[in-house]
Amino acid sequence: MSLYDGLDTYIEESRPRFESWLGRWVEVPTVSMDPARRDDVRAGASVVAESLQALGALATVVETGGHPMVVAGWEYHADWPTVTVYNHLDVQPAMEPEWTRDPFKFSIENDRYYGRGTTDDKGPALTALLAARYAIEHAVPLNIQFVWEMEEEIGSPHFKDGLAKASIGHGRGLQTPDSVVVSDTVWLAGGKPAAPYGLRGLLAAHLTLETATREAHSGLTGGVARNPLTELCAVIDRCVDAASGRVRIPGFYKDVRPLGKKDAEQFLASGFQVKSFADAHKLTKLRTRDRASVMRRLWAEPTFEVHGLTGGYTGPGVKTSIPPRAEAKVSMRLVPDQHPEKIFSLFRRYVRKLNPDIRVESDGMLRPYVGDLRGPYAAALKTAMRFGFDREPAFIREGGSIGAVVTMVEQWNAPVMFLGLSLPDHGYHAPNERFDWGQASRGMKAFVKYFDEISRLP
Amino acid sequence: MSLYDGLDTYIEESRPRFESWLGRWVEVPTVSMDPARRDDVRAGASVVAESLQALGALATVVETGGHPMVVAGWEYHADWPTVTVYNHLDVQPAMEPEWTRDPFKFSIENDRYYGRGTTDDKGPALTALLAARYAIEHAVPLNIQFVWEMEEEIGSPHFKDGLAKASIGHGRGLQTPDSVVVSDTVWLAGGKPAAPYGLRGLLAAHLTLETATREAHSGLTGGVARNPLTELCAVIDRCVDAASGRVRIPGFYKDVRPLGKKDAEQFLASGFQVKSFADAHKLTKLRTRDRASVMRRLWAEPTFEVHGLTGGYTGPGVKTSIPPRAEAKVSMRLVPDQHPEKIFSLFRRYVRKLNPDIRVESDGMLRPYVGDLRGPYAAALKTAMRFGFDREPAFIREGGSIGAVVTMVEQWNAPVMFLGLSLPDHGYHAPNERFDWGQASRGMKAFVKYFDEISRLP
Repeated sequence: MSLYDGLDTYIEESRPRFESWLGRWVEVPTVSMDPARRDDVRAGASVVAESLQALGALATVVETGGHPMVVAGWEYHADWPTVTVYNHLDVQPAMEPEWTRDPFKFSIENDRYYGRGTTDDKGPALTALLAARYAIEHAVPLNIQFVWEMEEEIGSPHFKDGLAKASIGHGRGLQTPDSVVVSDTVWLAGGKPAAPYGLRGLLAAHLTLETATREAHSGLTGGVARNPLTELCAVIDRCVDAASGRVRIPGFYKDVRPLGKKDAEQFLASGFQVKSFADAHKLTKLRTRDRASVMRRLWAEPTFEVHGLTGGYTGPGVKTSIPPRAEAKVSMRLVPDQHPEKIFSLFRRYVRKLNPDIRVESDGMLRPYVGDLRGPYAAALKTAMRFGFDREPAFIREGGSIGAVVTMVEQWNAPVMFLGLSLPDHGYHAPNERFDWGQASRGMKAFVKYFDEISRLP
Repeated sequence: MSLYDGLDTYIEESRPRFESWLGRWVEVPTVSMDPARRDDVRAGASVVAESLQALGALATVVETGGHPMVVAGWEYHADWPTVTVYNHLDVQPAMEPEWTRDPFKFSIENDRYYGRGTTDDKGPALTALLAARYAIEHAVPLNIQFVWEMEEEIGSPHFKDGLAKASIGHGRGLQTPDSVVVSDTVWLAGGKPAAPYGLRGLLAAHLTLETATREAHSGLTGGVARNPLTELCAVIDRCVDAASGRVRIPGFYKDVRPLGKKDAEQFLASGFQVKSFADAHKLTKLRTRDRASVMRRLWAEPTFEVHGLTGGYTGPGVKTSIPPRAEAKVSMRLVPDQHPEKIFSLFRRYVRKLNPDIRVESDGMLRPYVGDLRGPYAAALKTAMRFGFDREPAFIREGGSIGAVVTMVEQWNAPVMFLGLSLPDHGYHAPNERFDWGQASRGMKAFVKYFDEISRLP
C-alpha cells in the first residue's frame, strides 16, 4: 500500500481537529511584543505542547530567558535522517482599527479561518504538525522534530540560548538535523506557490553626536554653535543617495555576489507584480516601477535606511533651539557575500573620517542567507509543492531577515528550506488576518510529500 | 537748580521702595509659558499696574487675546516728544534643579536681589519706572509711556493686537512715539555697558514628505520604498554646509549688507570673549574660536538650522521600519537687508527643485532690525550710559529676534534703542537668577539722563 493511498481521507478526516485546535491556539493572544501578554504567551506554549502530545509526540516547554519555546519529536531512530520543522506561535499585536472581528475570537466563514495568528504562523504550524503525524504513522523513515518559537515577532532574542538548552523530554536533547524546513513565508499570488531560498542580512547601528551640554538658543548662538542634527543629516547624505538608494560607503558593494542568470530567471518567473507589491505595503511612491529592478532591489541588493533622528524638537509647531546632542538610528540590509562585521568596520571608519566627533555603535547584526537552488532539498521542495498544489513553486528570495534562520544555519550548518503557505490576501501582519482550508489541506499534502522525499536523501 | 542735583538722594531714598516692590513683583510667578500660571500672569499685570498708579501714572491692564499687557503714562503734552519704554513682566519657568532658593521667594543678600525675574525683566522695568518718575517730577519735557508685555518669553503672539487696542485710560490711546527704549538685554561683561543696536530676523518653516500611507518593513520593501527621512536629510544637506554653517540656497546672501568698518570696530571694542560665550551657553564644540569671526557670525550673518526631524522611530533601540512620512523643522536667522518673504520664496523654489514631492510651509517670519549707530538716539544712549556707569557702552548686535521690537518698528516707524541692565552673571534664563542694587541705582541715573537727552532732540 502506498504512503499516499490514505492521505486524502486522512486530511479530510483531520479537518474537524484542525479547526478546533486552530481555534484553541488562536484564542490565546500570544502577542510577544506586549509585556502585558507575558502569561498568555506562556499559556500559548502549553496549549500547543498539549496538541503535540495528543499526537504522540514528546513535547517540552523550554525556558529561554525570555518567552519559552516548544520543542517536540517522536521516537528517535539513529539511522534515519532528521528534519527540524520551524514555526513560531507568537503573533503580532492586533490594534488596527480596521479589524471587523475580535482578533482573538476564532471564526470560520466559507472555508476561511479568521483571527490574529491564523496565517502567521499558527495555521501553517498546525498544517505541518498534522502532516508530520501522518508521516510518522506511515513509517516514513525520518526523525521529525519541531522547534516552535514564541519570540519571532520580536527578533528571536533568546532563540540561540533556547536551542542550546532545549530538551525534547526524557533527557533527549535536540538532534542536529540534516535539514530545516521553515513554514512562515508568503506567496506572491494565490495559486502560484513561492519558495524563498534566501534572506537578506541586517546591520543596525546608531550614530550619536554631542556638541553642547544643554539646548542652545539659535538666535544667541546660531552660526557658531554646531548643530548635531544638521551634521548627522550631512553624514547620512554621504552614506546613501536618497533618490536612488545607492549606498555611498566606500567598499560597501565589494563582496556583493552578482545575481546569477538562474536567479534572475526564477525572479522573473515568480509572478511578482509591482502594483500588488506597492498596494500591499501601502507605498504611494517608489524609487522605480521596473519589475526586474524592483525584485533585484528587494531580494538581491543591499540597502541603507534611516529609521529615526532624535534629539531635536518633535512637538507641534517650531521651537528654534539647537539641540545639544542628536542620534540617528540606521540599518543596512545585506546580501551574500557581505559580512556584517566587515561592513560595520567600513561604515564606522567612513563616518569617523567624515566627522570624527560622531560615535558609531552597532545594534545587532544578522548574516544574509542564501540556499542552494540546485541541491536535492530544493528539488524535494519543488516535487512537494507540485504534489500539493499542482504547480511548481517560484524560487524567490526574501528581503527581510529572520534571525532564527541565521541562528539555525550557524548552529547546525544544515540547509534551510521554506515551505510557506500564506497568501497575500491572508493579511499577514495586517487587520482581519485569515487562513483557509485550501492552503491547509494542500499544505498537508505538500508537507507529507516533502517529508517522504527528504527521508530518501542520502 | 539742575535736574541732577537731587538725583543721588532720590535714588538712595528710593531703595526701600525698589526692594519692597521688586519683592512683590517677583513673588507673583508670571510664567507665561505655563498654562497653569495663567491667573498668576494676570495677577502680575495688576500688581505692576498698581505700582505705576502709585507713582501717579495712568495705567491700564489691556486685554490682548492672550495674556494681558500693561500700558501707562502721565499727563500728555502734545508739544513734548514721546518715548515708549518697553519691558516685559512675564518670566521663564524655574524648574532647574540647581536653584538653591525658592525661585518665587524674593531675598536680598549683599546688595543682590534673588528670584526668578529679578534681572529678566522685572528689575530693569522697575529701574526704568523709578527713573521716569524722577524725570516727570522734575518736569523733563518728555511724554514717557510704558508698554509692559506679559508674553515676551513665548514670542509675543498677541503683542501687535494688544498695541492696537491699548488705551492708557480716560479714553487715551497709546501715542505714536518718537522713539522706543527697550531694557531687556545683557551686557557682555560687568563694568562694561553694552548696547545692542540690531537684531537678526527669523524665518521658520517645516518641510513634509509622504511616500506611503503606513510604516513599511525595511526588509520587505527596502531598496524600492522611498525613505522620507533620508530624502529630507539630503535636502537639508543641500541647504546648509553642516561644517561651516554656510547656507547653500541660491541667492540667499544676495541682500546681506556687508558689515561696515565702524560696526566691526564696535564689535572688537565690545569686550566679547569667546570662552565666556561658550561657557555661558554650555557649548562644548564651536565652528570657530576666532573672536572676530564669532561676533560676525552671531550678530551680522544669517544662519540655517534644523531643529527637529519627526516621523521616524525615537524610542529606545532600533526599529527597522521605514516611516511613511517625515517632517523637518527648520529656521533661518536673517540679517539686514534680507527680506523674510523673499528668502522664503527662494527657499521654497530651491527645495521644490531638489525634491518636488516635499511640501514647504512657513511658520512665521520676523524682519531683521538694525538701528542707526550714528544718529542722535545712539549719542543720547552713549551719554546716558557714561553718566550712569562712567563708561561708554559697546555697541554690539543681538543674534536673537525680539518679536515685539519688530512689531514696534513696523507700527511706529520709530528708532528703538536698547538700554539693558543685566549682567552675564545675573543668570538670565538660568537658575538662581539675580539683580543688584549697583545696576539698579546706576541704571536709574542712566535712564534719567537718557530721558533728559532725548527730551531735547528736535
